[in-house]
Amino acid sequence: MDNVTVNFFREDGIEAPVLIEGLPGIGHVGKLVADHLIDELGGELVAEIYSLHFPPQVVVDERGVTELVCNEIYRCEKDGKAILFLVGDFQSTSAEGHYILTESYLDIAEDLGVQRIYALGGYGVGHLVETPRVLSAVNMEQLRPEVEAAGGSFENAGTGGVIVGASGLLLGLGEVRGIEGICLMGETSGYIVDPKSADSLLGVLCSLLGIEVDHTSLQERAEDMEQAIEKIREAEEAKSREELNYIG
Amino acid sequence: MDNVTVNFFREDGIEAPVLIEGLPGIGHVGKLVADHLIDELGGELVAEIYSLHFPPQVVVDERGVTELVCNEIYRCEKDGKAILFLVGDFQSTSAEGHYILTESYLDIAEDLGVQRIYALGGYGVGHLVETPRVLSAVNMEQLRPEVEAAGGSFENAGTGGVIVGASGLLLGLGEVRGIEGICLMGETSGYIVDPKSADSLLGVLCSLLGIEVDHTSLQERAEDMEQAIEKIREAEEAKSREELNYIG
Amino acid sequence: MDNVTVNFFREDGIEAPVLIEGLPGIGHVGKLVADHLIDELGGELVAEIYSLHFPPQVVVDERGVTELVCNEIYRCEKDGKAILFLVGDFQSTSAEGHYILTESYLDIAEDLGVQRIYALGGYGVGHLVETPRVLSAVNMEQLRPEVEAAGGSFENAGTGGVIVGASGLLLGLGEVRGIEGICLMGETSGYIVDPKSADSLLGVLCSLLGIEVDHTSLQERAEDMEQAIEKIREAEEAKSREELNYIG
Amino acid sequence: MDNVTVNFFREDGIEAPVLIEGLPGIGHVGKLVADHLIDELGGELVAEIYSLHFPPQVVVDERGVTELVCNEIYRCEKDGKAILFLVGDFQSTSAEGHYILTESYLDIAEDLGVQRIYALGGYGVGHLVETPRVLSAVNMEQLRPEVEAAGGSFENAGTGGVIVGASGLLLGLGEVRGIEGICLMGETSGYIVDPKSADSLLGVLCSLLGIEVDHTSLQERAEDMEQAIEKIREAEEAKSREELNYIG
Repeated sequence: MDNVTVNFFREDGIEAPVLIEGLPGIGHVGKLVADHLIDELGGELVAEIYSLHFPPQVVVDERGVTELVCNEIYRCEKDGKAILFLVGDFQSTSAEGHYILTESYLDIAEDLGVQRIYALGGYGVGHLVETPRVLSAVNMEQLRPEVEAAGGSFENAGTGGVIVGASGLLLGLGEVRGIEGICLMGETSGYIVDPKSADSLLGVLCSLLGIEVDHTSLQERAEDMEQAIEKIREAEEAKSREELNYIG
Repeated sequence: MDNVTVNFFREDGIEAPVLIEGLPGIGHVGKLVADHLIDELGGELVAEIYSLHFPPQVVVDERGVTELVCNEIYRCEKDGKAILFLVGDFQSTSAEGHYILTESYLDIAEDLGVQRIYALGGYGVGHLVETPRVLSAVNMEQLRPEVEAAGGSFENAGTGGVIVGASGLLLGLGEVRGIEGICLMGETSGYIVDPKSADSLLGVLCSLLGIEVDHTSLQERAEDMEQAIEKIREAEEAKSREELNYIG
Repeated sequence: MDNVTVNFFREDGIEAPVLIEGLPGIGHVGKLVADHLIDELGGELVAEIYSLHFPPQVVVDERGVTELVCNEIYRCEKDGKAILFLVGDFQSTSAEGHYILTESYLDIAEDLGVQRIYALGGYGVGHLVETPRVLSAVNMEQLRPEVEAAGGSFENAGTGGVIVGASGLLLGLGEVRGIEGICLMGETSGYIVDPKSADSLLGVLCSLLGIEVDHTSLQERAEDMEQAIEKIREAEEAKSREELNYIG
Repeated sequence: MDNVTVNFFREDGIEAPVLIEGLPGIGHVGKLVADHLIDELGGELVAEIYSLHFPPQVVVDERGVTELVCNEIYRCEKDGKAILFLVGDFQSTSAEGHYILTESYLDIAEDLGVQRIYALGGYGVGHLVETPRVLSAVNMEQLRPEVEAAGGSFENAGTGGVIVGASGLLLGLGEVRGIEGICLMGETSGYIVDPKSADSLLGVLCSLLGIEVDHTSLQERAEDMEQAIEKIREAEEAKSREELNYIG
């Protein structure tokens, strides 16, 4: 098995200038926005990414069928604009794996003609936020005015902040390849799946993309996701119990 | 040393269409059933699997002779049906190792003509179960009716469950190779070696295999295994004490 | 991605016989001294070092622009003497990574004609020190008199001490390549960024280098660094909160 | 850097049929006996072994000179019998590293004509032992009578015991190469450097080797080792404090 395996379901006509990353993170804000957009825009699954840097497990779906842990690439078109999405439920299990996986994500992006990446996430503040800001970072300074014009804030700059995992490395390693990177982080308590934060983030993102989408189902989607996460948490606890019982 | 080394004791005439995995896991249900079947069917040891992804240790047997940590492949024939078994006392020590080892298990399976894998395990519920169900998962949807007909339940489907380690990956990575995968998990508290759960599991498995075996020695075998595990636990504790005393 | 990537901003005329290492460590003494010297001597950034053995993250700077985690090589000239500096905010995330990164540092040193390395650090004693000594170690015995003449103490010798991470390995692996190595460790409590310890260390180092630099801004620089570290600590805590919220 | 580097100080005339391993372990019993024998027999250092699987650090000796972490091969001759020793202060930092290092140790053994390995260690029982037994394991059953005739006990056989790290793998992986392996473990509390246990172990080992050595300095040597370990413990604690102060 290679470190990373990418299976394309379609090879032709899947280029796009923009990739949006919405992998799991704080408050599930990025994931919530990306999943919502894919749904609203009618996304098509174009590739699956498997890796031995993901957790060594399968997920049992509602039919009782197992699915190998993977992340996915979706593609949408809206008003003649093509957008790719990198989504899924997993990040690397190791520090080195984050670098290796992100290089693979960037290989895919380059192959499909991506010139700009939006990395979506949450910005945890540990308390409830009435009007969540969308805190931002860019990997090339000239991108900043455009983000500010769309409502993104840079008030977090200069606070010694770091962006960990795929979101951060897509900007950092993307810059080496000349791919523009914009990280948008919805302010959130970090304790719940946060539809209010996602709402703010979706506003700024759509402004940057120059598209319009309906926001109304975000609240409901957040509740569904909260329930799904609760189930996974219970399964994780069962898994921990199991591991305590291994002989080896 | 390679990542994984496989030593075959015999090369010819060891093909079989079915492989049963019974590595250690919750309640030792899978291991108990696999060991019982090998014994009842008169299994022959056909291969040993060594790996640097196993714990770095040897086991001292009853003669005082050391055996390098390994898993084993057995082969049985019953009523003209050939069955392979993957058994042993160890799983990988690392996340990546689970992927690497499972790919090796599947290489062996493919080489020996295996078309279907049964992965056996326990399904921990944290409390005693009067009439243990055999919860199930499959890696291809069309396998489900056959499992249900044999008494397997899919009531666990849709609860966000995951199957970790070799059992899960045999289904997930096996599906990529076109090998059918059925995971059978006997409901169990998870706190003891559970012969009642194993009894239920054995019933469903034999129905699927179309063979009959005696169940009567399962209870006694469970007690022996409980004692062996107790010894290993004590040795593990001694090992922990030892590690605290290393200089390096 | 390779394990380690080195980007040179300039190829010619950057040789130097001496390299000073000031990576993060106890009391930030080594880092404080190295950063101070680069500033006072007007250092030029000549190379950046990236690696998958560093933490998988980017740092957001004061403009809101992300920078991939890296260490840096600076070059200064003073009184006709050329000096290289290895500085940055990161050490390896794994034990093996320390060896791999240090070999890369030594490859750079060898390519640039370095014959001697000064590894700077702190020597934590757990309590405040009125007059901090500069405790020392060398990788070739004949270097000791020169260090003692400059005010370095060897009173720590024979206490079973170890030097961990890049500082230690630059001496140990440097010796194999015939590069002289001198480790200077300012005595410090270890609880604060310690300008008094840095002051002592700077004195011994300048004497060894045969140069003079102003010490007056060390105090202010220590206060700035203390604040920067506080911000990073807060960001790290936010990161920990974030990781607790991952699904995968 | 390779995973493991072996430097020979002499190439010719260093063959020997026997290798004794005395790396750190419980009660430092094996190390104490091996170091004692090297001293009594006048051992010559013939090789050093470096590896990125050892801790990433250097040790500062009594002269203030750093030494890269390594293990060592010594060679002794007594009554026309040549014996090699594998000693040092370190074991691998990772599970995989134990396998990789042990294969290197066995490569050296094979190159030097070794036909039998004695792996020395302690057997921790958690309480003081008045008359310590020498518990034993072999990697080929036919070796057992010889060990019993020399006073080794096999009363530990059949208790589910495991032998971890280099001692265990030298027997397990050695057997694959046809090298005889005998593990001798002196019963010990595990809490102190145990000269009484070492005394028992030395008796059985010398009987097996067919040589005689003086035991009288074992007690003093144990006291010296206890002090050296205490210093290293203190240095380790200082190291832990240091690591807490890293930025990265």
